[in-house]
Amino acid sequence: MASPKFTAPDGMPKQDQVNEFYQAVAEADLQPLWVQKGIMPKEPPLAAVPFAWKWKTLKELAERSGELIPIDRGGDRRVLSLSNPGLSGQPFATPTLWGAVQYLGPGEVAPAHRHTPAALRFVIEGSGVWTLVNGDPVAMSPGDLVLTPSWSWHEHHNPGDVPMLWFDALDLPLARSLDAVFFENGPDQMVNRAVDPTSNSELHFGSGAGLVPFEEKVTQAYSPLFAYRWKDTDRALANTLRKSETGTASLRFVDPTRGIDVMPTMRCSMHRVSAGAKTRTSRRNGSSVWVTFRGSAVATIGEERFYLDEGDMFAVPSWCPISIEATHDADFFCTSDAPVFEALGLDRAEFLD
Amino acid sequence: MASPKFTAPDGMPKQDQVNEFYQAVAEADLQPLWVQKGIMPKEPPLAAVPFAWKWKTLKELAERSGELIPIDRGGDRRVLSLSNPGLSGQPFATPTLWGAVQYLGPGEVAPAHRHTPAALRFVIEGSGVWTLVNGDPVAMSPGDLVLTPSWSWHEHHNPGDVPMLWFDALDLPLARSLDAVFFENGPDQMVNRAVDPTSNSELHFGSGAGLVPFEEKVTQAYSPLFAYRWKDTDRALANTLRKSETGTASLRFVDPTRGIDVMPTMRCSMHRVSAGAKTRTSRRNGSSVWVTFRGSAVATIGEERFYLDEGDMFAVPSWCPISIEATHDADFFCTSDAPVFEALGLDRAEFLD
Amino acid sequence: MASPKFTAPDGMPKQDQVNEFYQAVAEADLQPLWVQKGIMPKEPPLAAVPFAWKWKTLKELAERSGELIPIDRGGDRRVLSLSNPGLSGQPFATPTLWGAVQYLGPGEVAPAHRHTPAALRFVIEGSGVWTLVNGDPVAMSPGDLVLTPSWSWHEHHNPGDVPMLWFDALDLPLARSLDAVFFENGPDQMVNRAVDPTSNSELHFGSGAGLVPFEEKVTQAYSPLFAYRWKDTDRALANTLRKSETGTASLRFVDPTRGIDVMPTMRCSMHRVSAGAKTRTSRRNGSSVWVTFRGSAVATIGEERFYLDEGDMFAVPSWCPISIEATHDADFFCTSDAPVFEALGLDRAEFLD
Amino acid sequence: MASPKFTAPDGMPKQDQVNEFYQAVAEADLQPLWVQKGIMPKEPPLAAVPFAWKWKTLKELAERSGELIPIDRGGDRRVLSLSNPGLSGQPFATPTLWGAVQYLGPGEVAPAHRHTPAALRFVIEGSGVWTLVNGDPVAMSPGDLVLTPSWSWHEHHNPGDVPMLWFDALDLPLARSLDAVFFENGPDQMVNRAVDPTSNSELHFGSGAGLVPFEEKVTQAYSPLFAYRWKDTDRALANTLRKSETGTASLRFVDPTRGIDVMPTMRCSMHRVSAGAKTRTSRRNGSSVWVTFRGSAVATIGEERFYLDEGDMFAVPSWCPISIEATHDADFFCTSDAPVFEALGLDRAEFLD
Repeated sequence: MASPKFTAPDGMPKQDQVNEFYQAVAEADLQPLWVQKGIMPKEPPLAAVPFAWKWKTLKELAERSGELIPIDRGGDRRVLSLSNPGLSGQPFATPTLWGAVQYLGPGEVAPAHRHTPAALRFVIEGSGVWTLVNGDPVAMSPGDLVLTPSWSWHEHHNPGDVPMLWFDALDLPLARSLDAVFFENGPDQMVNRAVDPTSNSELHFGSGAGLVPFEEKVTQAYSPLFAYRWKDTDRALANTLRKSETGTASLRFVDPTRGIDVMPTMRCSMHRVSAGAKTRTSRRNGSSVWVTFRGSAVATIGEERFYLDEGDMFAVPSWCPISIEATHDADFFCTSDAPVFEALGLDRAEFLD
Repeated sequence: MASPKFTAPDGMPKQDQVNEFYQAVAEADLQPLWVQKGIMPKEPPLAAVPFAWKWKTLKELAERSGELIPIDRGGDRRVLSLSNPGLSGQPFATPTLWGAVQYLGPGEVAPAHRHTPAALRFVIEGSGVWTLVNGDPVAMSPGDLVLTPSWSWHEHHNPGDVPMLWFDALDLPLARSLDAVFFENGPDQMVNRAVDPTSNSELHFGSGAGLVPFEEKVTQAYSPLFAYRWKDTDRALANTLRKSETGTASLRFVDPTRGIDVMPTMRCSMHRVSAGAKTRTSRRNGSSVWVTFRGSAVATIGEERFYLDEGDMFAVPSWCPISIEATHDADFFCTSDAPVFEALGLDRAEFLD
Repeated sequence: MASPKFTAPDGMPKQDQVNEFYQAVAEADLQPLWVQKGIMPKEPPLAAVPFAWKWKTLKELAERSGELIPIDRGGDRRVLSLSNPGLSGQPFATPTLWGAVQYLGPGEVAPAHRHTPAALRFVIEGSGVWTLVNGDPVAMSPGDLVLTPSWSWHEHHNPGDVPMLWFDALDLPLARSLDAVFFENGPDQMVNRAVDPTSNSELHFGSGAGLVPFEEKVTQAYSPLFAYRWKDTDRALANTLRKSETGTASLRFVDPTRGIDVMPTMRCSMHRVSAGAKTRTSRRNGSSVWVTFRGSAVATIGEERFYLDEGDMFAVPSWCPISIEATHDADFFCTSDAPVFEALGLDRAEFLD
Repeated sequence: MASPKFTAPDGMPKQDQVNEFYQAVAEADLQPLWVQKGIMPKEPPLAAVPFAWKWKTLKELAERSGELIPIDRGGDRRVLSLSNPGLSGQPFATPTLWGAVQYLGPGEVAPAHRHTPAALRFVIEGSGVWTLVNGDPVAMSPGDLVLTPSWSWHEHHNPGDVPMLWFDALDLPLARSLDAVFFENGPDQMVNRAVDPTSNSELHFGSGAGLVPFEEKVTQAYSPLFAYRWKDTDRALANTLRKSETGTASLRFVDPTRGIDVMPTMRCSMHRVSAGAKTRTSRRNGSSVWVTFRGSAVATIGEERFYLDEGDMFAVPSWCPISIEATHDADFFCTSDAPVFEALGLDRAEFLD
């Protein structure tokens, strides 16, 4: 570090002294707090904006990418990421969350890799695909939530004859802002195996509520259950709705052995809103990305209204009020950074109605 | 407290002085440690002994009690408790656990009460019975585990036309040794209601592995899920067995929202042993009570061998080795005081083969 | 197990049938619940009674035992245990806690052993003694709390020329009722070493509030700090009292690395009551044993009043109201089974004024 | 959202089709993953660089700012922030941590405010200053660590006649990247009060290792103890060093009631290196900022060597190896984002020698 040239004599005019001072500060790799007016705003400044992406467009472009763009080592994945218009062209849905649509055509394989950013898949269309997670083959079908947690090996296989499209979410923006991204490619040769409709992970941890292996102690930071099946989620939503007085039902996906969030950076939840019902207007510190899995609805996010149909995705920025009113019985998958905010003591939330 | 008469003059013979000293100690409500030879044994002294009760006898006597003994306020329950021959006639299966067979005849009702000792029911025979747990009606069928946790109101109803027999377990001996027993009778008038095969508790917490209400925060010491159904348990055992190399499968019943034991004083588990398979010989500090739900087996407990058929119950004392070898595919329900030993830092366990 | 002789023909008179039934039940090692009237009392039946032991007597008898009774392998310790008059001659202060006065004369050594029951020492009189805890030499002085946790090796040395008398507390009654007692003798040859006034444990964990080793991860069930010095306790009480509006101050001794109770079965606390001040009347499920370390007071326990002077010890049974009024500034050491009750979900407490 | 103009006819040349596709993707607020080559680097890309700021310069500029820049509402604080040369002119020491020197002249007051970013102060020079933390007056002296946790009101007073200079650290970059910054000004009128050398917080929680209020339950996310005094820290380092075989001693500052980090986003520690001793070379995922409090040393951070004297500050980027060799007995204060990485399952660390 160069020594600062700080030599302003006392006889110098005040403004010149101040200017010279600022120059010395800059040369010393320092910055005065008092000139950084926006650095502590009264509320989060909301660079990210409320935004929705239509499934019609997402699907059309994903299919077109399937025709035009091969999958191979280097690209690894055929993914179109949701780029929030408020985030200056970065490929992020919110400041902490990556959202995207991924397309895997018939006969294609996305090769093995792993990375510290955690990822999840929520399947929208297609069949016959399976994902190998740390050696465990996990089948994928619409409505399923499949986890590929931080630093777990994963590769996707489509041995069938129809394409699959799924929603991808990662904590990549968060991991990047923490300088915490590590990445590693797996072997190029593919694993070929017959896939059971039930993975090892599901056999051991997914048989039913409150039933866990007698001795196995889970110590990793994420859920040992890698797949949450739509059949179970659908039944759980229906059961909860039976006792609901609001026409809405909300579930959290958790590690069945500890009840904690499925991954330490991403809360996953499913929300059912009956036709005509409306959720309360609420907001929280932290952001989320949503997928309209079934039905149609109008979401009011901040000042804007978004008309949502099956497959539509939307982003809710930090501290931005949201309410959803269903026009037809609607189901939403949601992932958020809530566990991060809770772990760091930064969570705050409120209802506005 | 009377002042001790401790007046031995120095000239008195030594033995007389000692005698006088002991008398003074006793009068002062004190006791010398050094004369209490057995108070710190090298290993738990095992007053409780390994013991098995045959279902044939249990059932015969339970049915006979149904003919002879009415249920009414005061008695409240028609229960025959397992009385370990090593425990000096106390009605306890082990020093911490009460085990029993309960009989509820057609048309009978066991009236509402609550107590701080926690209880559980594992159903062996019958149908059509339901238990009201803190206002939530819980249906009961063979193989089901039903919880009535500490201080929860509970009453049993048999509106059907066949009797039901179930295994009762309580932490009553433990609660008694802690001077921690509180008891309260409920209202005498019975609740009558149509019972759903699925309780509220199950609708909210029992829909599937890793699926919990989005907002509901469980703060009580015990599981919010009161019923674990045999259909789920059976499937979970089968799934686990598929990947087992030993021909055995073991499950733990846990609170689905936190993964902790269903109740803080009683661990519950289910164990499947395929015909011809044999569990390892192990022992642990703390005791357990078992029910043979299906099949037949030979259990070696300490030095003794017990031939077990469906419905047979047995007690395993602290630090006593146990191994089970199935003669036909066999399923066992087990409840133990393991969470107590773990919470108090007293758990130790070892394999002996 | 013999098969029960249950042969009552239907023509037999009812009472005979019942009698025959009861006999068959007994022969089958069973007991009917409905005849055990007292087994579920409305409140803990309080076999243990409120009781106090006077220091004058304790000291006199302890000193006399020092003259009459040698310490050697087998007896191991010269201990007079508080025997609650309600507990049928058992050497226990309460159903879960052993309390005692221990006497170690000049030049004496109490040889090494270890046991699963946890123990603590609160020093009342004397100087120059040290206790070796798992190889760590811990000096002892009046007002110090010294831990010898479950299964830790410990031996006591008095190389000085005055006797030491201390209060011993163990969870022995609890450990016995759980069949959880293991015991092992150490080597007979004594360790001789110069003792630092500060043990290794204190050097690493006892330097100040909120200061812990950077990397060391404590995994055992008990505190890594074995000694809590009177100097610190006294200052902490004085500091707390400065801001107290009631003239009372209460501290808990905790594991400095986790904030949990020093041992999982025994809560330790210190209570200062200024002359003329009076604590609120409260009761809790679970029992405690107290030592009057300084000053004098009147304790109202249940219906009884106890006049307490320095060194006097007293037992408070489960669910028994207690209040203390100081006649001179008074300090009390207390140990209770509260962590057990909390861990097992059995804690309940209330104020009565 | 405008509908994408995606109309490429099949007869169009391939490259034109691809170009048209990319244009449609961009218009749909999407981005292809496969063109974002650097988004998943093999290791954190280390925008931030190892860097040191000399105390001589920091102090000179801070004093000069004292002459030139008033403190008033709006600016609120006279702070020069460490601006890591790798971070494109942002006023941050690392991607997660703000480091700075703050200057408060005689008679000055920095007015009350609060913000969700957590802050801490480590005092380097001066005397007589106190900080009001949520109404609790906390005195400040060299070597003291003072916390002003997330959303706590704080203001700084210098009623004395010498300036104070301290090191400021905040999790501001992290809070900003999460869109989690809230800020509120307090009342303009100043609080004037006599300051006790010991704050309420210290009276209740700071009296000694393992001594906490009997009843008070801490539920907030941060330590209830706001000040860690140099006298205690110094003694703890000396005690630890006595048993050290490496000539180094490291302490962690923790919440005395739970043993967790003082604040959920910032680990605080103190490190003593004896003259001639050298720490092992290690690296971890996540960054830290250090202050040389006493002595002198050479730090090797990555490939660079930094010669450190009293007051010098330095930044260690994520995954960058560091080792410190003392030329004179040296003490270092360090704050890091380690609790964030641990909470999010992103922590990894290794020794390199």
